[in-house]
Amino acid sequence: MSELHDLTRKLQKQNDSKIVLLVADGLGGLPIERGGRTELETANTPNMDELAKFGTLGLSTPVIPGIAPGSGPGHLGLFGYDPLEYQIGRGVLEALGIDFELGPNDVAIRGNFCTLDGDGNISDRRAGRVASDIASKICKRLDTIEIPGVEVFVRHVKEYRLVIVFRADGLGGHVHDTDPQKTGVPPLAPVGADEASQKTAAICAQFLAQAREILKDDQPANFLTMRGIDKKPHVPTYNEVYGLRAGAIAVYPMYRGLARLVGMDILDAGQTLSDQMARLKAAWDDYDFFFIHFKYTDSTGEDGNFAEKVKRIEELDAAIPRITELNPDVLIVTGDHSTPSKMKSHSWHPVPVLLSAENCRPDRCEAFGEGDCVTGGLGQFPAKYLMGFAMAHAGRLEKFGA
Amino acid sequence: MSELHDLTRKLQKQNDSKIVLLVADGLGGLPIERGGRTELETANTPNMDELAKFGTLGLSTPVIPGIAPGSGPGHLGLFGYDPLEYQIGRGVLEALGIDFELGPNDVAIRGNFCTLDGDGNISDRRAGRVASDIASKICKRLDTIEIPGVEVFVRHVKEYRLVIVFRADGLGGHVHDTDPQKTGVPPLAPVGADEASQKTAAICAQFLAQAREILKDDQPANFLTMRGIDKKPHVPTYNEVYGLRAGAIAVYPMYRGLARLVGMDILDAGQTLSDQMARLKAAWDDYDFFFIHFKYTDSTGEDGNFAEKVKRIEELDAAIPRITELNPDVLIVTGDHSTPSKMKSHSWHPVPVLLSAENCRPDRCEAFGEGDCVTGGLGQFPAKYLMGFAMAHAGRLEKFGA
Repeated sequence: MSELHDLTRKLQKQNDSKIVLLVADGLGGLPIERGGRTELETANTPNMDELAKFGTLGLSTPVIPGIAPGSGPGHLGLFGYDPLEYQIGRGVLEALGIDFELGPNDVAIRGNFCTLDGDGNISDRRAGRVASDIASKICKRLDTIEIPGVEVFVRHVKEYRLVIVFRADGLGGHVHDTDPQKTGVPPLAPVGADEASQKTAAICAQFLAQAREILKDDQPANFLTMRGIDKKPHVPTYNEVYGLRAGAIAVYPMYRGLARLVGMDILDAGQTLSDQMARLKAAWDDYDFFFIHFKYTDSTGEDGNFAEKVKRIEELDAAIPRITELNPDVLIVTGDHSTPSKMKSHSWHPVPVLLSAENCRPDRCEAFGEGDCVTGGLGQFPAKYLMGFAMAHAGRLEKFGA
Repeated sequence: MSELHDLTRKLQKQNDSKIVLLVADGLGGLPIERGGRTELETANTPNMDELAKFGTLGLSTPVIPGIAPGSGPGHLGLFGYDPLEYQIGRGVLEALGIDFELGPNDVAIRGNFCTLDGDGNISDRRAGRVASDIASKICKRLDTIEIPGVEVFVRHVKEYRLVIVFRADGLGGHVHDTDPQKTGVPPLAPVGADEASQKTAAICAQFLAQAREILKDDQPANFLTMRGIDKKPHVPTYNEVYGLRAGAIAVYPMYRGLARLVGMDILDAGQTLSDQMARLKAAWDDYDFFFIHFKYTDSTGEDGNFAEKVKRIEELDAAIPRITELNPDVLIVTGDHSTPSKMKSHSWHPVPVLLSAENCRPDRCEAFGEGDCVTGGLGQFPAKYLMGFAMAHAGRLEKFGA
């Protein structure tokens, strides 16, 4: 168990405070040119700057210095779960990403449709990126596969990607990928690393045999490979570790899935930031903690679109008054990692953090930006400690020791 | 295994990037007078200041706060190996320091010549700091000692200091010192802490009996004590943990030895900084990573010679263009610890770090000095994470998790 959770389990106390964690995905950035400003520093953000003036800034390290995280580890860190302790398999993440509710007996698998040649060798590992409407219909046919003693679920994700879930008692999650990662060779047989996983591997083999028969006349997707075969890790809930009733307001399924993993209630987020703000207001009395996820600071960064990322940050800033008018006791604005437009990818750079609360110790920061955050009062800290700051500023932690 | 290496083993990827780690030994300093500047802040360093302007600064903590490290832990930290996890016995360090290539079956011992009185009690623990030319000849006589089933090596280091190596299968490295740390008493008998080390202790005893006979008529060095009896720890190589072909360019044997310990190739460094720079250029295409060691910032600090340390820093700065003209993707200038001239010793003060790379996030630092480093964008971090920053800025790490 983590140090933080060991302490928050013991020291948590109840009050009427409200905590809002507003995550702008991939918020951190870089200047495009030497001597320039980052996206966040370029954006006109009067509301966040006002919060920064009286709040406390800092920089968080999602995993350890130098490591760029995916969305899974990035969010687990923000939620206070050490991303090195709680590692999530790709199959599980893919299932979370389509709102599939995984149970404790479920093994989740990421499937990739592929094309086999006449000799049974893989000629295309992505089945020519088969169109989603075709692949979706194939998934419905595969969903009819029956294996005695096992519930089988097959769900389409996008193009050649699908999720397969086996639900049965005693299945292990350590089965090697069947994707050989190259063409010109046949798919690998599923192999389990321990006894319980050998049982899973046998089910995989049965499924694949039936799938081969069902798909034999299809083109280009006449078979599939299996990757990231895993069970959902046991993750203690927000209610257990923090004593918080937590609600998640996220438009994209992946982030709803990550919130569900830590035991948050999933609230209807609608489709827009404005919908999310309306939901926040409507649900205000029902929860102690709200996680609000804003995707577009990451997607514009991934696209390498500096100007658009700046605009998205400004859009987010304009929504801040709809949070502050509710008078949250603690409002945190941060990201799960950096996604500099310059790099078009997630990066290792530490993530700007803004914490606004009544008992913030002021630092000398005047605006919310990476340069100010370097000298912020929270310092540079592992993201997994952010929830400690949140709980403390909300007055939800007793003193440790006498 | 360390978190960092656990991750870099999995996430490392290959590209054409070049990383240069320039270590100015004992770089960090202190002002002599209140309100003054440190050696690094006093030195005129236009080249490093230019790098600082567009790079990112920070401060590294070699071990944990408050701990002044020796060269061994200082360098292991910079190389990304937790100095608390990889502890190196003094015998091993002494052997590394004379370029003795230790194998996995070797037990290395630091010997000190001493003077015994007529009763067999130690009257001088350093044999009157016996002259090197005399001690060197004595070592050659001791090198003739033969013990059945064991290869014996005796090498002189300096004055009263020598290295003894026993090479044989199954020798343990846990034997207590025979130096009683005081005079007026006889040397202690060698005692092994476990079965394999009792075997080693028996060999030590045989060696000491023969040495006593050989030296009985010598003065002042008529016997020796044994300290820091240990085997070389198993240290995974740079190639294993980072996927880097690493070359070390160090004038002094101790630093070559430390580089060899982590699997770097030892390149001919010549005798001067200029020789080292020529070697860097000549070897540029053959390695991904270069460790360059500059000793004189430490030795001048140890001498308490502030002005000379400043000059040595300026000498180093003048060599920077010979590195930057090779266009390294990542250039790091730092130290393995601080050696303030004011203290004439290694200290615990955190160590200035300058990292220059294309995707550095700018901070507001304008020059390379301890004062600027406090507000640098890398923050204050354990030295063992420096290689994470190096790998990340070189684009040599995949994303962690999806």
